[in-house]
Amino acid sequence: MSSENRVRLRALGISVGHYDTGALNAITDVAGVAVGHVTCVEGERTRTGATAILPHGGNVFQDKVPAALAVFNGFGKFAGSTQIVELGEIETPVLLTNTLGVGRAIEAINRHTLAQTGNERVVSLNAVVGETNDSRLNDIRAGRPTVDEMSQALAAAKTGAVEEGAVGAGTGTVAFGLKGGIGTSSRVVSVAGVPYSVGVLVQSNYGGKLTVAGKPYEAEGAHDKDGSIVMIVATDAPLCSRNLKRLAERCFGGLARTGAALSNGSGDYALAFSTAEDVRRTTERRKAVAAYPVLSNDVVSPLFEAVIEASEEAIINSMTMATTTHGYNAGTDKPSTINAISLDALKRR
Amino acid sequence: MSSENRVRLRALGISVGHYDTGALNAITDVAGVAVGHVTCVEGERTRTGATAILPHGGNVFQDKVPAALAVFNGFGKFAGSTQIVELGEIETPVLLTNTLGVGRAIEAINRHTLAQTGNERVVSLNAVVGETNDSRLNDIRAGRPTVDEMSQALAAAKTGAVEEGAVGAGTGTVAFGLKGGIGTSSRVVSVAGVPYSVGVLVQSNYGGKLTVAGKPYEAEGAHDKDGSIVMIVATDAPLCSRNLKRLAERCFGGLARTGAALSNGSGDYALAFSTAEDVRRTTERRKAVAAYPVLSNDVVSPLFEAVIEASEEAIINSMTMATTTHGYNAGTDKPSTINAISLDALKRR
Amino acid sequence: MSSENRVRLRALGISVGHYDTGALNAITDVAGVAVGHVTCVEGERTRTGATAILPHGGNVFQDKVPAALAVFNGFGKFAGSTQIVELGEIETPVLLTNTLGVGRAIEAINRHTLAQTGNERVVSLNAVVGETNDSRLNDIRAGRPTVDEMSQALAAAKTGAVEEGAVGAGTGTVAFGLKGGIGTSSRVVSVAGVPYSVGVLVQSNYGGKLTVAGKPYEAEGAHDKDGSIVMIVATDAPLCSRNLKRLAERCFGGLARTGAALSNGSGDYALAFSTAEDVRRTTERRKAVAAYPVLSNDVVSPLFEAVIEASEEAIINSMTMATTTHGYNAGTDKPSTINAISLDALKRR
Amino acid sequence: MSSENRVRLRALGISVGHYDTGALNAITDVAGVAVGHVTCVEGERTRTGATAILPHGGNVFQDKVPAALAVFNGFGKFAGSTQIVELGEIETPVLLTNTLGVGRAIEAINRHTLAQTGNERVVSLNAVVGETNDSRLNDIRAGRPTVDEMSQALAAAKTGAVEEGAVGAGTGTVAFGLKGGIGTSSRVVSVAGVPYSVGVLVQSNYGGKLTVAGKPYEAEGAHDKDGSIVMIVATDAPLCSRNLKRLAERCFGGLARTGAALSNGSGDYALAFSTAEDVRRTTERRKAVAAYPVLSNDVVSPLFEAVIEASEEAIINSMTMATTTHGYNAGTDKPSTINAISLDALKRR
Repeated sequence: MSSENRVRLRALGISVGHYDTGALNAITDVAGVAVGHVTCVEGERTRTGATAILPHGGNVFQDKVPAALAVFNGFGKFAGSTQIVELGEIETPVLLTNTLGVGRAIEAINRHTLAQTGNERVVSLNAVVGETNDSRLNDIRAGRPTVDEMSQALAAAKTGAVEEGAVGAGTGTVAFGLKGGIGTSSRVVSVAGVPYSVGVLVQSNYGGKLTVAGKPYEAEGAHDKDGSIVMIVATDAPLCSRNLKRLAERCFGGLARTGAALSNGSGDYALAFSTAEDVRRTTERRKAVAAYPVLSNDVVSPLFEAVIEASEEAIINSMTMATTTHGYNAGTDKPSTINAISLDALKRR
Repeated sequence: MSSENRVRLRALGISVGHYDTGALNAITDVAGVAVGHVTCVEGERTRTGATAILPHGGNVFQDKVPAALAVFNGFGKFAGSTQIVELGEIETPVLLTNTLGVGRAIEAINRHTLAQTGNERVVSLNAVVGETNDSRLNDIRAGRPTVDEMSQALAAAKTGAVEEGAVGAGTGTVAFGLKGGIGTSSRVVSVAGVPYSVGVLVQSNYGGKLTVAGKPYEAEGAHDKDGSIVMIVATDAPLCSRNLKRLAERCFGGLARTGAALSNGSGDYALAFSTAEDVRRTTERRKAVAAYPVLSNDVVSPLFEAVIEASEEAIINSMTMATTTHGYNAGTDKPSTINAISLDALKRR
Repeated sequence: MSSENRVRLRALGISVGHYDTGALNAITDVAGVAVGHVTCVEGERTRTGATAILPHGGNVFQDKVPAALAVFNGFGKFAGSTQIVELGEIETPVLLTNTLGVGRAIEAINRHTLAQTGNERVVSLNAVVGETNDSRLNDIRAGRPTVDEMSQALAAAKTGAVEEGAVGAGTGTVAFGLKGGIGTSSRVVSVAGVPYSVGVLVQSNYGGKLTVAGKPYEAEGAHDKDGSIVMIVATDAPLCSRNLKRLAERCFGGLARTGAALSNGSGDYALAFSTAEDVRRTTERRKAVAAYPVLSNDVVSPLFEAVIEASEEAIINSMTMATTTHGYNAGTDKPSTINAISLDALKRR
Repeated sequence: MSSENRVRLRALGISVGHYDTGALNAITDVAGVAVGHVTCVEGERTRTGATAILPHGGNVFQDKVPAALAVFNGFGKFAGSTQIVELGEIETPVLLTNTLGVGRAIEAINRHTLAQTGNERVVSLNAVVGETNDSRLNDIRAGRPTVDEMSQALAAAKTGAVEEGAVGAGTGTVAFGLKGGIGTSSRVVSVAGVPYSVGVLVQSNYGGKLTVAGKPYEAEGAHDKDGSIVMIVATDAPLCSRNLKRLAERCFGGLARTGAALSNGSGDYALAFSTAEDVRRTTERRKAVAAYPVLSNDVVSPLFEAVIEASEEAIINSMTMATTTHGYNAGTDKPSTINAISLDALKRR
């Protein structure tokens, strides 16, 4: 793997949108959200990993958070979807990994949750797993990350700055024929006089005609069109699951603006959850009637725009932070190299 | 039209389910709900009408109610569906009428709403209209009810007992080859120690092998399989739109128990709304954040069962209250007669 | 209304995407598709109209076409949605008009279809109507277009070049705070060696930060964010309704690239249909089993990209062809003027 | 486990519906469909298993079958849902197992499929797994079936008669407070003069007020209301994925007729696929355009009724064939016994 000096988009003097970012310009600007990676790089063939996102630091199964899933193109293996839709909540951390690792990721989330204090008698839980296909750099058929490695991503989760690029679930992903990976961004918006944070984290692995902040990126030749993306949205705004679904859908606005081909082979998913204490579905509140403060339909539009902006920027960050990667193409059984996007080319625009 | 003495199912000594009914055993047991009919019977060919359901006595556009729509088989022309899904609310009364009258019903709801005090500058509203096809008894192509007649149904809406059978939107409908129509029923259930009312009103116009409270009704020969049903659920339980959707879906449990064939030609729709003051989306609450008390997922199941029971009973009431009707079959251009279900046969079971 | 000389985007030397356009760069490049407008401009207050799209020149009720609807944000009154989803087809022409005209448009489609030769005994039909809200220029509460005017749009439908801008259903619409309207564009793409046409027609009435072919349009000050868009996609590619839905969804890719805010108040709908003779659901084919040639999932991606490109260009055409319009704001009860986009500013970029 | 003599519903002289059954009255009446079980009964605590359903005897990944999923209540962990919806097909066998075994079942399907001849370069596949919660008899937290045990179910799949009751994925399930399990039934219906087979297999684990062929089953006291059901529909009728979805939805008609409470905690899923050679999506057909013969909307209703009947009967078969089971309640950490339904009580009705 190359040792070039990678930076985030804003360090190149390029910005997206007009809302302010949070302090870290990361999903972790939403208080309590933690992110963990496990990166599996071994020999010539293993270039994969997993990334965990925890909505809060407590027991998520006991204190569930309202959530929603939006599927733009469902050629993917996202786990947990139907229960999220039915109940409007998630009750576990989220794991991102590769396409053939979903079963092992579910197993890791189950083990993690069953082992938590207070969950000794839990017999049902809905593990949430997103994936994209890293087989252009990784021997995806070989069973990595293992269940134990998946667990390491969960264990590694922490608040604060998020490692981006060819790391965790982004270790082997490819975007626009260039190296993709994990990227994040955030916005702070005022709704009815109150500031709220919105953060997005993406695992980019798709294609099209790359457009960076409105300008085509023309430096490379053949651009790849296939692949997928998973986008996770966190917000501290008090929202019901119906409006969280609408938030999640706005990720596709950011996706489209990067020049995505939105092709048949894409698995394009966005999950949104609220971390607001007041809408958390605690054991106590779930006993009968509870009052949840929620933002009205009439005032959510600024949050929608924030999601569009943060999604677009998170995607580009996943590329500017990713490094050229040598690995193995499991579809063709050949060595492969995927170049990082040229920061020089971006600066020259 | 025959002058036989029609009664509701319970008057025949037959009951459905195990929960108590409300005082009227009608959708109007949910406080504030009003129902109005216009019945159009003229000459040999006009056997149609419209039925209005008002969620509360105020200005529904200003004080919207949370609502949801469930579509079991979408071969129908239900108006207003996508906005109900997106915003989780209704902002107008509901009109039921015949298949080719939906446009005129929208027009009537628009006129009604635009004319209300406080709505002088309203420029967008989502009229909600359900329909089934009464062309086996009615010259449906002839443009009745007119817009003015639709308006009469809205104007006639009142709380209290609901007229059932071959009336309003049920004037020309057919169920199981027998006369269908408007029927209603209600249940009172206790959730976490608090009693809530659930009421259902149906426009029955479908078929299959009729089963009344578990027993096949074998009195008639050829049973018709086609047609549709629209079911409206009202409750005073404080529910979010997501759980109202689940309530609406349970109508199909009641429908199935009557022996419905659930055929290709069915337009099977259920709309549910909550009348609870505390979840009403008033002008004031829609300005920013508002706290809404809602029942938790964990405790809603008794309401689900209440809907199954009330739906089944409302359907049978629509038949036992309906009278044999002579009219015109617009599909065959011939006179037609649809017999009422035999109360004697039901009593003898 | 101003008499400035308006042109389409390509006449300004600006193009979108990389696929070729059809001969007319219009939805009517898809053989058989016809478009008709009625434009209602009267006095100071009436600035509205309707636009009809006919999928083929025959009896659409008898020879239905496979179709699908995609809803991005459902704050709208689109009529016919649930039956399109259930049956995967449309059986009437499509009318676009204003928000409060949907009922009258349904009535006009019903009259049109019932009156066609061969439909003498038709008793059920699913009128398809899209709308956006032209109340910023039009006295939308005043009941125009009338049912008869709606019928005129249907009667006016013809193949060949399509009139764009402030015409038909676009007479009073507003996009990005500038004059929107009707726009169209098309692409020709080769799939497995066979060329197919894809055409898009839009009624633009939404907002955000306008981006034209990747560049922000900065000429005006306060940009409006609210509003809606309806997009109609026609193709001669043989597609099943499932893949037509995916085609329809790609319209939102084009929409996002124009800088759409995708706000709460948007009613963003896309309808797609195939005109291919071989997938038409004729009376004969509907009798039992029929063989339909359809493109495989694996090869549809070029059509998806074509839709993204044509949608984006159709939107911009709706603006470059629209003229500055003086009218009446029904929400504020005041005169209003909406300026056309400056072609000079676009040329100078 | 008891050794009582268990029989299918028809052996008790009770039948459901009016269509003929297939030769075996099983899902395997649909030619080519194979079913395999692994049953894990060990010590006092392990009462679980898995059941595999293979749509045909070839390489399902290469020769995919059109399929659709219907979700009535999505409180479940069904895997593979979004890709089934998007592409209208399945490309792997289906595994049913317990709630916490979904990850291991995915892993087993992946291993199975990757190892098949012709799949050496496959890097993406969509494993389909259904589940219900057998924790009232099984130590569900203990990780059984293992991945290897899941694989045994796949390896055991065979055509011919299907073992029912407390076997495979039904080993530890509970229905109406009585022992549930695996059940199956089939129907043969004529559509436009051609006979088609429809088979249903269920994993029953839900509750309500049990109704057997229209009559309440009153023999037991406290009836349990919670739980889930997964229903698999196979047919040799040539259907597109859209009509397969409608077929799947009709399972809920059969479910409702058994007295299901349709409670909050249910995970109620139905998957339908067509085994017709002519609609199979072979490698060859997926290259470009292929012609698929499909039944028209207008003629599918008899298949809908067949599904209602076969679903109801499959559920009751799952109970009449199940044996009283002693095990372990993982939610309460106590031994538990679930009685089989009394065949004597059924005969006496």
